Amino acid sequence: MQSTMMATPLSLNHLLERAGQLFHRNEIVSRLPDKSLRRHAYGEFYRRTRSLASALQKLGLQKGERVATLCWNHHAHLECYFGIPAAGGVMHTLNLRLSPDEIGWIAGDAKDRFLVVDDVLLPLYKQFAGLHRFEKVIVFPFSGAAVPEGFTDYEQLLADADPEGFRYAAHGEDDPVAMCYTSGTTGRPKGVAYSHRSTILHTLVASLGDFWGLRGTDVVMPVTPMFHANSWGMPYGAVMMGVKLVFPGPHLHPEDLLDLMQVEPPTLSLGVPTIWMSLIQTYDASQAKESPHHGRWKLPRGMRSLVGGAAVPESLIRAFDRHGIWIEQGWGMTETSPVCTISYPRAELQGASEDEKYRRAAMAGVPVPLVDLRVIGDQGEQPWDGRSVGEIQVRGPFITGSYHEVPVSPEKFTADGWLRTGDVASVDELGFVRITDRTKDLIKSGGEWISSVDLENALMAHPAVAEAAVIAIPDEKWSERPLACVALKKDADAHPGDLNAHLLQHGFAKWQLPERYEFIEAVPRTSTGKFWKLKLRERFPK
Amino acid sequence: MQSTMMATPLSLNHLLERAGQLFHRNEIVSRLPDKSLRRHAYGEFYRRTRSLASALQKLGLQKGERVATLCWNHHAHLECYFGIPAAGGVMHTLNLRLSPDEIGWIAGDAKDRFLVVDDVLLPLYKQFAGLHRFEKVIVFPFSGAAVPEGFTDYEQLLADADPEGFRYAAHGEDDPVAMCYTSGTTGRPKGVAYSHRSTILHTLVASLGDFWGLRGTDVVMPVTPMFHANSWGMPYGAVMMGVKLVFPGPHLHPEDLLDLMQVEPPTLSLGVPTIWMSLIQTYDASQAKESPHHGRWKLPRGMRSLVGGAAVPESLIRAFDRHGIWIEQGWGMTETSPVCTISYPRAELQGASEDEKYRRAAMAGVPVPLVDLRVIGDQGEQPWDGRSVGEIQVRGPFITGSYHEVPVSPEKFTADGWLRTGDVASVDELGFVRITDRTKDLIKSGGEWISSVDLENALMAHPAVAEAAVIAIPDEKWSERPLACVALKKDADAHPGDLNAHLLQHGFAKWQLPERYEFIEAVPRTSTGKFWKLKLRERFPK
Repeated sequence: MQSTMMATPLSLNHLLERAGQLFHRNEIVSRLPDKSLRRHAYGEFYRRTRSLASALQKLGLQKGERVATLCWNHHAHLECYFGIPAAGGVMHTLNLRLSPDEIGWIAGDAKDRFLVVDDVLLPLYKQFAGLHRFEKVIVFPFSGAAVPEGFTDYEQLLADADPEGFRYAAHGEDDPVAMCYTSGTTGRPKGVAYSHRSTILHTLVASLGDFWGLRGTDVVMPVTPMFHANSWGMPYGAVMMGVKLVFPGPHLHPEDLLDLMQVEPPTLSLGVPTIWMSLIQTYDASQAKESPHHGRWKLPRGMRSLVGGAAVPESLIRAFDRHGIWIEQGWGMTETSPVCTISYPRAELQGASEDEKYRRAAMAGVPVPLVDLRVIGDQGEQPWDGRSVGEIQVRGPFITGSYHEVPVSPEKFTADGWLRTGDVASVDELGFVRITDRTKDLIKSGGEWISSVDLENALMAHPAVAEAAVIAIPDEKWSERPLACVALKKDADAHPGDLNAHLLQHGFAKWQLPERYEFIEAVPRTSTGKFWKLKLRERFPK
Repeated sequence: MQSTMMATPLSLNHLLERAGQLFHRNEIVSRLPDKSLRRHAYGEFYRRTRSLASALQKLGLQKGERVATLCWNHHAHLECYFGIPAAGGVMHTLNLRLSPDEIGWIAGDAKDRFLVVDDVLLPLYKQFAGLHRFEKVIVFPFSGAAVPEGFTDYEQLLADADPEGFRYAAHGEDDPVAMCYTSGTTGRPKGVAYSHRSTILHTLVASLGDFWGLRGTDVVMPVTPMFHANSWGMPYGAVMMGVKLVFPGPHLHPEDLLDLMQVEPPTLSLGVPTIWMSLIQTYDASQAKESPHHGRWKLPRGMRSLVGGAAVPESLIRAFDRHGIWIEQGWGMTETSPVCTISYPRAELQGASEDEKYRRAAMAGVPVPLVDLRVIGDQGEQPWDGRSVGEIQVRGPFITGSYHEVPVSPEKFTADGWLRTGDVASVDELGFVRITDRTKDLIKSGGEWISSVDLENALMAHPAVAEAAVIAIPDEKWSERPLACVALKKDADAHPGDLNAHLLQHGFAKWQLPERYEFIEAVPRTSTGKFWKLKLRERFPK
């Protein structure tokens, strides 16, 4: 027998129409370059997005063609998220933190036809303009200044368009809507193309109660850049549920975020650990009577903060919890849309101790629905016993099965169709994933593995340590030994002996202690805010 | 260009595997015929369900074949929800409130091959056994008694099966997993067949924060029968999020539900308005010092209650809110999986008055994601102005596009592929649907429409009225006039004059007042607890 259900395709356009019908009164707030706030209603977002789509069709955009964006987080970028797919195009977010050479190469690889760029980012654009020719460069006058000659004015384009006469491009649910490139710490960056289907499914799953828990009454502040795995997909979820959005624009310094939180206190925010580390340090420093910022900020009690992109130290979770802010850690990657696991308060742990609660919160979390997850060690699939480690492999309808125009390679995909993530982890009997390392960051000392992540987290729990990154250095006897690169807090002091004592107290064995310490200014970061260990390996080859 | 995403099919089996992996410690509680409680862990549910699937395959169940259930709400019924599809079959829930003739006809129409039946329901089975021959009748020993000769013992079947050796039947996401028949107030009942895809999508959407808001820490009591639109799909959502389930078994009297709530206080419950009306009346009566139940019950403060299947009077919402229980109204039908609209607290109404809040809560609510909704009047599509009425039509991936083996008729489906629901409503500018009537229940008086639902709700807000149903009676001058059939509360008294005065106070015009009142014992109900106006029309033809 057959199912009798309608064959209606999943579509991003449905979310846009829904937002226009239901949420037209709700607000979208964007911080402009001059730090003033621009307030849009969803009704305006709806009309402007349809205008953008209509204008792109008039410019001749064909089904499946790429339109790049080089933008901060703001309302016009959100319009691109929905307007480009509505016109039948594929939104390709360029990462403004990459080198101009890389951006130019990526735009060329994606064959981007048009570009939408913030006026304040035109200097960056000009540095890679020679590497790829966009047929049209549409400048969003973010700063309010006049758009320079030779460029198309985004606002004028919208003003000339006809949102009423607009018709959505026909599409199937597997047609692409957005494209991101992996940061590519090894080899060239590679493109991942999301479909209507994968985006709707990811949005539904991630928005569920135990994960993002999105409700229409939420006020969401996406600090995660919209060019970083689509701000983890939050813009789609926000529009689906009609939440109030507060975009920080280009102002991502801790002082700026704290200022913005005073005017628009969020109920939910998202960003990488670095952001929250510096934010809490800035806030704590302002508590001192002699601070010039004394009394300037209140933290938004009751806020939930989604943190991902790198491991979240337990000390950070405890620090925020003291202020009534709960950090919910997630793990995923550009290849996985990105939400794969989230650490949330499980019913089974309701009677657990505080320490146990924090220990779980500092893990990558539990696989979300529609994601199959397994851990493969040398001997095959590992049991979920909290000890056995191996590479995480995932499968599901919002996980990439290939890279754009790259042959499928066995280093990235298994023969039975799973994505090899390159992250090493154990899973416990409640399904909590604990990431111990990237495959390439593991330290093999005397035939035993040492987790650099475990050492880093323990070091960062020391009161004098601001940041710590551990890498392997070659060793004749043990093959590899850990080297700890430590950045101390301002005016703080600690010696290797103190830190070793601290590690021993935290349960590390003697042979697991760092062979050596290097005290550095700060840990170098990739464009997406992750520890860039490659740079440390170059600096400390032995 | 192509999307790079994996083509993983949506599958109910994924939810079962996930529950087995993650939630094995969580509990499923079932109330047995003798009122004792049976406690299962999800781990046991997982193994038993795979055993059931394995056993069905061994019995020769082929892909797409129907296995009927005739069961109350309990853990074994939940096993059928997942075990029958896991074996490749289609679960067909038989409605035990229908007449034996109807049940037999429906089982024959669906060509059910096997039947799973509660031992306590064998007397009912025997009344329709002559109308359709099941190849095998599997009896669940719900009461604990020995299974009679000639039947297969459900527990023995599971005990003999091999859950380890079980392999899921191969399937595509559009393959059917479950089947329900519409209650069919006009004509023969018709079958609706849900697919893996429609079920997963409906589960994801309905579980979102503003709707069911399911979290793993919830305790859910499904009073809505599992043979009534699959208990609104809640069993699927519960297993997806690993919530604790509390099944009331056959004990649905208000005293029984109140007793169960003392032992297992739910955070979320679901049922038709009748259940909650009688529950609050029973509770209120127990507050009297002289009541034999005085002090026996506490209501579970903070509980949310999903109510649907019929319009929820504002007075009922206010009555529960006084006890800290929030009623969330939804609207849908067997044809729509069923959740189509839900009334939830919108951000736009955060500053609204209490009265406004209740007024909205008493509406059918706002369309959920993936559901397109429109209202078609005589002049075509109606504006969302809160006044213009017409028939609700819906479209989406979890809405039926046909009936099982019935030619698609224009009375049920429009030429452009929308389902005609037969409900008449207006939609306001925030998307709130207000159902004014079934198309066939509208009263046309002197060229103007009178809403029977509005009159009923206002009458039920009168302190002396337990229930009220309004039907049309023929009238020479006005063509039709309203007749109010009123059941008074025990020991309460009210005369037509009092009720008319009450209606005038509530804003009704004189010409809208009932032409006549009939005082009755109780409003007759359909098998699913809805007012059965057909019976009243037969009783009061003029």
